[in-house]
Amino acid sequence: MAYTVGLDYGTNSVRCLIVDVTSGNELGTAVYEYETGEAGIILDSADHNLARQNPADYLKGIEVTIKEAIAKAKKADKDFDANQIIGIGIDTTGSTPIPVDENGTPLSMLDKFKDPTKSGLIQSRPSAWPNACAWLWKDHTGHAEAAEITELAEKEHPEYLAKCGQTYSSEWFFSKIFHCLRTDPKVFDAAYSWVECCDYIPAILTARQKPDIIKRSRCAAGHKAMFNSRWGGLPAKDFLAKLHPKLGELRDRLYEKTYTVETQAGKLTEKWAQKLGLRAGIPVAVGAFDAHFGAVGSGIAPGKLVKIIGTSSCDMLVAESDQDLADIPGICGIVDGSILPGFFGLEAGQSAVGDIFNWFVNYIQPGGAREGSHEALTEKAAKLKPGQSGLLALDWNNGNRTILVDQRLTGLLVGQTLHTKPEEIYRALIEATAFGALTIINRFEEYDVKVSEVINCGGIAEKNPLLMQVYADVTGREMKISRSAQSCALGACIAGAVVAGKKAGGYDNFPDAQAAMCGIKDITYKPIAENQRVYQQLYVLYKQLHDAFGLSDWSGKLANVMKDLLDIKDSIKS
Amino acid sequence: MAYTVGLDYGTNSVRCLIVDVTSGNELGTAVYEYETGEAGIILDSADHNLARQNPADYLKGIEVTIKEAIAKAKKADKDFDANQIIGIGIDTTGSTPIPVDENGTPLSMLDKFKDPTKSGLIQSRPSAWPNACAWLWKDHTGHAEAAEITELAEKEHPEYLAKCGQTYSSEWFFSKIFHCLRTDPKVFDAAYSWVECCDYIPAILTARQKPDIIKRSRCAAGHKAMFNSRWGGLPAKDFLAKLHPKLGELRDRLYEKTYTVETQAGKLTEKWAQKLGLRAGIPVAVGAFDAHFGAVGSGIAPGKLVKIIGTSSCDMLVAESDQDLADIPGICGIVDGSILPGFFGLEAGQSAVGDIFNWFVNYIQPGGAREGSHEALTEKAAKLKPGQSGLLALDWNNGNRTILVDQRLTGLLVGQTLHTKPEEIYRALIEATAFGALTIINRFEEYDVKVSEVINCGGIAEKNPLLMQVYADVTGREMKISRSAQSCALGACIAGAVVAGKKAGGYDNFPDAQAAMCGIKDITYKPIAENQRVYQQLYVLYKQLHDAFGLSDWSGKLANVMKDLLDIKDSIKS
Repeated sequence: MAYTVGLDYGTNSVRCLIVDVTSGNELGTAVYEYETGEAGIILDSADHNLARQNPADYLKGIEVTIKEAIAKAKKADKDFDANQIIGIGIDTTGSTPIPVDENGTPLSMLDKFKDPTKSGLIQSRPSAWPNACAWLWKDHTGHAEAAEITELAEKEHPEYLAKCGQTYSSEWFFSKIFHCLRTDPKVFDAAYSWVECCDYIPAILTARQKPDIIKRSRCAAGHKAMFNSRWGGLPAKDFLAKLHPKLGELRDRLYEKTYTVETQAGKLTEKWAQKLGLRAGIPVAVGAFDAHFGAVGSGIAPGKLVKIIGTSSCDMLVAESDQDLADIPGICGIVDGSILPGFFGLEAGQSAVGDIFNWFVNYIQPGGAREGSHEALTEKAAKLKPGQSGLLALDWNNGNRTILVDQRLTGLLVGQTLHTKPEEIYRALIEATAFGALTIINRFEEYDVKVSEVINCGGIAEKNPLLMQVYADVTGREMKISRSAQSCALGACIAGAVVAGKKAGGYDNFPDAQAAMCGIKDITYKPIAENQRVYQQLYVLYKQLHDAFGLSDWSGKLANVMKDLLDIKDSIKS
Repeated sequence: MAYTVGLDYGTNSVRCLIVDVTSGNELGTAVYEYETGEAGIILDSADHNLARQNPADYLKGIEVTIKEAIAKAKKADKDFDANQIIGIGIDTTGSTPIPVDENGTPLSMLDKFKDPTKSGLIQSRPSAWPNACAWLWKDHTGHAEAAEITELAEKEHPEYLAKCGQTYSSEWFFSKIFHCLRTDPKVFDAAYSWVECCDYIPAILTARQKPDIIKRSRCAAGHKAMFNSRWGGLPAKDFLAKLHPKLGELRDRLYEKTYTVETQAGKLTEKWAQKLGLRAGIPVAVGAFDAHFGAVGSGIAPGKLVKIIGTSSCDMLVAESDQDLADIPGICGIVDGSILPGFFGLEAGQSAVGDIFNWFVNYIQPGGAREGSHEALTEKAAKLKPGQSGLLALDWNNGNRTILVDQRLTGLLVGQTLHTKPEEIYRALIEATAFGALTIINRFEEYDVKVSEVINCGGIAEKNPLLMQVYADVTGREMKISRSAQSCALGACIAGAVVAGKKAGGYDNFPDAQAAMCGIKDITYKPIAENQRVYQQLYVLYKQLHDAFGLSDWSGKLANVMKDLLDIKDSIKS
């Protein structure tokens, strides 16, 4: 028997999974909730754009979860032996860069930047500590810098933007670093380099944490740092220097090479092996983003769209590397080898899915906590027929990642009467996310990336049959569900099996590993013709609103409305 | 001392008010809630457009309320004597036509049409009874017939529409009668004539209820039945006959003449005087609609806009009769003498104001019944600054009466994020109604009907300082409040004093009576410059949405969205 370990670093917690590489059977799993801040996130009540994490939580999570998962695996199967674990894979959120010193130690762990509050919540500003921590993917403090990067790239290097949806996001690597440089030069100057979380963890486990020898992830670099072999890796030094001379200098301390996930980041050190109860020397795979390993764990292959549906969605496809792939407007990233080695990885997504329903339930709480629960609303909403409410919504409460790439878009609901009920709004919000999902599929297909199969994973896909049926009816496609409830961690396990190799009991390539370790649930959701017909009518209207409020070159003039409201809002706050 | 009685027939109840004509002091008041149906309205769960009332409730209300008000007046002032009551005025909702036989008896009171359920709720259809009752103003069953009337008038008599906002409404006289003809010819054929509620009550009190001798109200005829002296009264016989030959025939059994409210409808009969404890022979004024007497009771005069703000709003102005008054697009009615004798009465309004807030509180109930009460939401909403929420709404949950005259418009909310709170939406809904109010004022002024003063009355104006302040800030005008909490009933009392005449202790004209009997509250709401500035910015955006979704000839193409949603909704239901 052979097993692998997958570590899946999410937004609020890290999960460990131990999998049988022959069958994909999941033997043990454990979760550690990050301790610092609110639900593991360092927040600032004065700036809702700020979201940081304490790297020390990441390290504690390794030990806690692997030990617990091993104990559970032993309990599940008394023949299980941790020495049968042949490899480790790791995925994390991203872009989540950490400023580190020359030894690769996060600045947040250095005495001079230590947390003055001990709570992780920013109570007395200014405090450098949060800036010395990990800048979580959902940190948007760098929105002005993102706009600046986009503007300069449009002028001087449009090719940089062509691969990332025409707009460089505030969630990404350089926006965050640039914002740190602008607002906290002490932290910036103290950073020898910046390391993505998905590179930091493998580096730690393999004692290769000096920035210059870390094997950086192609996935993170390509999707978030404009890394591309066509222009020799990272953006040109003079480009970065034009943004700020110090950014140009930093480039020399970042990286020249990147690696795909079939590569070993290194071998597990003796020290970590002892601490965790594993064999020393087993290989650790180069890291990747959670969504990408989720796609791997869901069986991604050309033509198979994998949708990870949670608070937001991540929609992934791979395309043959020899396909002459056009730049697809609005698709956040097209990166060679980012999801599966040897294929272009294409990433799209919706900025909010579950978060929109959570907003309605937690903030609006229609009818109170009980009446307005997800369960109660879903039960009533499921009884409604498509079109019956007369409502239509846009799914932009958190902006629009694909295909508009615009965070300064907001929600919209139309069709309310004096009789509109909460479950009607709830259903309209579900439908809105389905229309958003269809818009993404359509965009892929318009550019000749065919979607022949849709596999869903993530909490909402698993637990909400209503949502899955609406998605089937709206898209006119069968919705399948990934067998594993932990697709991301399973993808990491698959990478662990591939870097271990066939000789060690693993696999020599991803397709072989996926064939053995992935699967689809028995239950699927097929489009109902009658519903599909109504949703086709509604989608015409959705697209009208989408274009009217989302496209600045639309025939009428409405694209200003959401932006102007936000500008007015900002002017009032300040 | 001299007093008058005002009877004010509202949607759910009738109110009686006894007023001292010298000072306007209110001595006694009483309310009778109609007994039939739900909150006094006969409903049909299979057709939400249906809303009828039982005329027997109207009659019972006379006796119950006048007797109780007299008893209260005596209690309040032991010198009060019901013999000092010198006149009676009456206002009602409208258009609320009642089918009657040759004697003026409502068909609903005849044996052959009696209520088979006794409950007033339609349980087993078909039942003729509701069609034989009063067709309440908010009955929209005649929407198809309204469209037909509008279409024919556009082609053959555009002048008919020019005075009522270019669209004949389903709420109005002929739409209802025509719908009855189409769907229940037995009732239609049994009706000798149709009588507005505001004509029926004075006719009853004065024993002039035979349809041919009833003094019909100018206000009802002019605003709801296209009556205008320019074309010889009611719409031409051949016009009505083209809609349906029987409608043409009916015209001969309706009326040739109409009367303004300084006219006596007749004298109180001996029988009623005895029943009520009043002097026989005192004059009863010709009736009018509630809103119009509300304007009178609030002191309406040229330049003074009176806004009655309740579940919906009614916005009224009067203009000198010699003013060369243009037709004002979107203004529901411009009728000579309809509000004050000797002036053009102009009526505008919003289809929902309080009803929108009630919808949010009663249907959405954010946070539950306590958290989501008007009081709790108002308290929190009052703490927000204009523009701070980033939200903007359209106030069309019940369509748009003025200036778009389109019932097939619906609500819209834009600007939601994942952090939007209920009180922010509540405030946005208040602001939306304020923007709608400003749009009406602007339309009047664009057509040279100046608004130099705004006087508000109605429950919401009295009880909601937040709303009044928002209205002041949005319109840039001081908001005054009518002194009486019962402006409509007070207006009816003023009419009672005028028909009584100066010799009998009353007045010879309305301005004199208003000067003595009306007043303004001490508290007023003045625009705050800082808020006004923000609302000016927001109004630009409101107007953009207003035009985009409301005007079919707008530069983009969005006016179809709300209509298409309703069409889809209708197609699902059937």
